[in-house]
Amino acid sequence: MKQRGVTVWFTGFSGAGKSTIATALTEELKSQGCDLEVLDGDEIRENLTKDLGFSKEDRDTNIRRIGFVAKLLTRHGVIVLVPVISPYRAIREEMRKNISDFIEVFVNAPISVCEERDVKGLYKKVRAGEIKQFTGIDDPYEPPLNPEVECRTDLEELPESVAKIMDKLKELGYVA
Amino acid sequence: MKQRGVTVWFTGFSGAGKSTIATALTEELKSQGCDLEVLDGDEIRENLTKDLGFSKEDRDTNIRRIGFVAKLLTRHGVIVLVPVISPYRAIREEMRKNISDFIEVFVNAPISVCEERDVKGLYKKVRAGEIKQFTGIDDPYEPPLNPEVECRTDLEELPESVAKIMDKLKELGYVA
Repeated sequence: MKQRGVTVWFTGFSGAGKSTIATALTEELKSQGCDLEVLDGDEIRENLTKDLGFSKEDRDTNIRRIGFVAKLLTRHGVIVLVPVISPYRAIREEMRKNISDFIEVFVNAPISVCEERDVKGLYKKVRAGEIKQFTGIDDPYEPPLNPEVECRTDLEELPESVAKIMDKLKELGYVA
Repeated sequence: MKQRGVTVWFTGFSGAGKSTIATALTEELKSQGCDLEVLDGDEIRENLTKDLGFSKEDRDTNIRRIGFVAKLLTRHGVIVLVPVISPYRAIREEMRKNISDFIEVFVNAPISVCEERDVKGLYKKVRAGEIKQFTGIDDPYEPPLNPEVECRTDLEELPESVAKIMDKLKELGYVA
């Protein structure tokens, strides 16, 4: 399959469904023979950003390091999926500018829905006071103003979210 | 040109000629239509490792971050050139094991020759006491025991060094 390098950046609350969509999209792209990479939060943290916390400065540094790697892979023709909360608008715009081939996917569900899901049990810990600076609770989240794709994961099923992104990738000429 | 992904890791003193050889090799590979990336020390430091100093721990972290990026690019078919002093043997062996497709190039010149060249003026600063923990002067360097290629830059000309590495890349099936 013909493809061009691009970074698909998933932003949204913890529990909104970023990794779930990225995983499903990975399957879809792989079935079409695409060359792709998921810059998974845990792997990145272990290898590139273990030193960082959750202050705005550290979050920005975290995003810049991920973005640097995404840019390198993108310019070598890889489709790069980046599911990271990335709460600040300015740094996402910086990534868009730096990487150029960049699609922003707003993975959107109300915080109450994310908290109800609580897949990783993090919201429970936040409410118990065990975690601080948690995006959407006691730390800010700035939603995208003009994302290429918005997935309302509380209102749509997973295949619909994946199809929206695939359509956008085709429309912009990144996959055939 | 057909190619397989591989990391070419250049180790040696400051001033030994790592970047010079990497630059010349880049030209040679590009002329043959290869897809490659140089993980240049300055660009990496700016984007990935600005927080790190020159203790053994920080040097190891620096190498691990570079290696993580090299591995990602290598597995997507890119030829990755990494000119970094990387003084410690154990961490280079860790990179070899992690990346798998890995060629170690020992860029070797006596420290006295490197100091005489002093392209960046660093040795002068070391002798003036302005820089500490400088590899080969007051910080250790552990030479490779079995590098795939050794370039004796005090005894051979640049084209010979480049040809040695090209021959090894061909011999191991990374370039046609």
